[in-house]
Amino acid sequence: MSKFFSPKFSRLIPYVPGEQPKDKSRFIKLNTNESPFPPSPKAQKFAAEAIEKTMLYSDPECFKLRAALADIYGVGAENVICGNGSDDILNFAFSAFCDDKTPAVFADITYGFYKVFAEYNRVPYKIIPLKDDFTIEPTEYYNAEGTVFIANPNAPTGIALSVGDIEGIIQNNPDNIVVVDEAYVDFGAQSCVPLTKKYDNLIVTQTFSKSRSLAGARLGFATADKELITDLNTIRNSTNPYNVNSVTQAAGIGSLEDQEYTIKNCKKIIETREKTVEELKKLGFVLTNSSANFIFASHPEKSGEKIYKELKERGVLIRHFDAPRITNYNRITVGTDEEMKALIDNLECIL
Amino acid sequence: MSKFFSPKFSRLIPYVPGEQPKDKSRFIKLNTNESPFPPSPKAQKFAAEAIEKTMLYSDPECFKLRAALADIYGVGAENVICGNGSDDILNFAFSAFCDDKTPAVFADITYGFYKVFAEYNRVPYKIIPLKDDFTIEPTEYYNAEGTVFIANPNAPTGIALSVGDIEGIIQNNPDNIVVVDEAYVDFGAQSCVPLTKKYDNLIVTQTFSKSRSLAGARLGFATADKELITDLNTIRNSTNPYNVNSVTQAAGIGSLEDQEYTIKNCKKIIETREKTVEELKKLGFVLTNSSANFIFASHPEKSGEKIYKELKERGVLIRHFDAPRITNYNRITVGTDEEMKALIDNLECIL
Repeated sequence: MSKFFSPKFSRLIPYVPGEQPKDKSRFIKLNTNESPFPPSPKAQKFAAEAIEKTMLYSDPECFKLRAALADIYGVGAENVICGNGSDDILNFAFSAFCDDKTPAVFADITYGFYKVFAEYNRVPYKIIPLKDDFTIEPTEYYNAEGTVFIANPNAPTGIALSVGDIEGIIQNNPDNIVVVDEAYVDFGAQSCVPLTKKYDNLIVTQTFSKSRSLAGARLGFATADKELITDLNTIRNSTNPYNVNSVTQAAGIGSLEDQEYTIKNCKKIIETREKTVEELKKLGFVLTNSSANFIFASHPEKSGEKIYKELKERGVLIRHFDAPRITNYNRITVGTDEEMKALIDNLECIL
Repeated sequence: MSKFFSPKFSRLIPYVPGEQPKDKSRFIKLNTNESPFPPSPKAQKFAAEAIEKTMLYSDPECFKLRAALADIYGVGAENVICGNGSDDILNFAFSAFCDDKTPAVFADITYGFYKVFAEYNRVPYKIIPLKDDFTIEPTEYYNAEGTVFIANPNAPTGIALSVGDIEGIIQNNPDNIVVVDEAYVDFGAQSCVPLTKKYDNLIVTQTFSKSRSLAGARLGFATADKELITDLNTIRNSTNPYNVNSVTQAAGIGSLEDQEYTIKNCKKIIETREKTVEELKKLGFVLTNSSANFIFASHPEKSGEKIYKELKERGVLIRHFDAPRITNYNRITVGTDEEMKALIDNLECIL
């Protein structure tokens, strides 16, 4: 820290993204929930065509991309905002809808960035612990007296709430915003996007990083009531109106025009997840009921940290969180069948 | 604005980017200082190759890109940070280095986003008016008692300070940060990047949007003392660690490996600017001495707004700022010789 750094950030501890090894070819990389499949050929084609025009600014309104999203998700284009990943939009939401009088409200075990967004935006936050089985008790979020952030499915547990449970939270917070972060929704959970047409206090964020194989392109979006989108755009246009580059906008449109590809990949990942879950159970692992493209697992006979370290030595990278309550767990991205076989083989040797 | 929007932003008026017409082919577009030349073939090639790997996250540390920048600009990789455009990094600087006790300090006529960044980050700002001839008086920035932001060349005037003048400002602000925004430096001004090796209170930002024809790819960077880079990274990693996508990182590396292309394009744009300046003078225009890829011009017989509107009707888009002191001026991007001929022809008809 330099002597010039504002003391207002003295408590700020940045988010630590999952390890990105310099030489990725050395690892079976199951640590950052990337898709094992390449982006849709149509996404690649549209992106490639956009490159030669990058001397011109990208469309700051993402007009065509928002129209394509609106079409697929059954909302109006005025109900959509795009971001440089969904983190971008989540940060806008912490900024726009939280302040000294309106804390952020989220679970103790959830996406680790929520706490950082709150600290960065210097807003208070209220933590609601998950139950012992890592599930959320919806009624604990009723009348939250703050802006609620729920990852659904939750990370790193993979456990999903039903739309009915979330609708209960929304209905019981008429004076609060509820943000549902659906980064992993395409792998078996129900989406709350249709509810954004019914409630003026709901924001649903999604990402192209997981099911759409575009993590490296950085694209996320949110749907919400038009007025909430206006507020999010006020923040976006006060920080970086050109937040989504033109190649990524083109890739996003290509991906949306190739829905079958995404659906097929998600189906395959779900199948592989379920097979892997069975194999892990045979090895004695204790698992949550994941609706995501990852598995959250602990073993009664070996610590989470040891499993993580020994797998890394063997060239398999998974994610270990050195955090209360979950230190014995690891989060394992669902890759290809071959990658998961290698994982199981290595675990058999370790245990 | 929704009823949920935090009152802390009640005064916030977002930045308005230059008009991006839906159908760009209808206009000769001289309003957002884009390059008339496509990105370097090498930038395009590297970007195209990166697309097929976008299922993986981009390198959050921009390791290879920072190394390439360090190599070209003669600094260490640890002295470089990359951003989603240089706006991204300027916003980080307002956030990291300004607060209630440390106002932002900038000119009355300069890049319009500085005021928005200050308002968004809720930090006070001190305005130092340009002299009547739109030049900066360097000594007015001595002992600024705040974080100084200077666009060099300045926008929308195009007028540059010498490195010596800026070094005077840096030396006379040992307890303040000086941020030099060199978005347009490649078109004839002197860069302060070498000074970042000498002073621990200097940050220099640059962009790939202008001279490197990559506005649509969104890439900017800053060089500074290592400790200042650490502070900027604390902000980056608390908002969006994957701020630069992988295709853009690849395009940036390609551009840096093809310096001749950038240098050739800048030379051509400077030549076209100087020719256009002569033509405009013949038509009676009053011009600033621009070292940028734009011209700032007023005409004694016709208002800036009228010239802007009449040119737009004729399919030539330039930028008019409805702001005190410069309302009679227009900012005209330097395009190709053909585009500038069309501009002059249309102006001859209008006047």
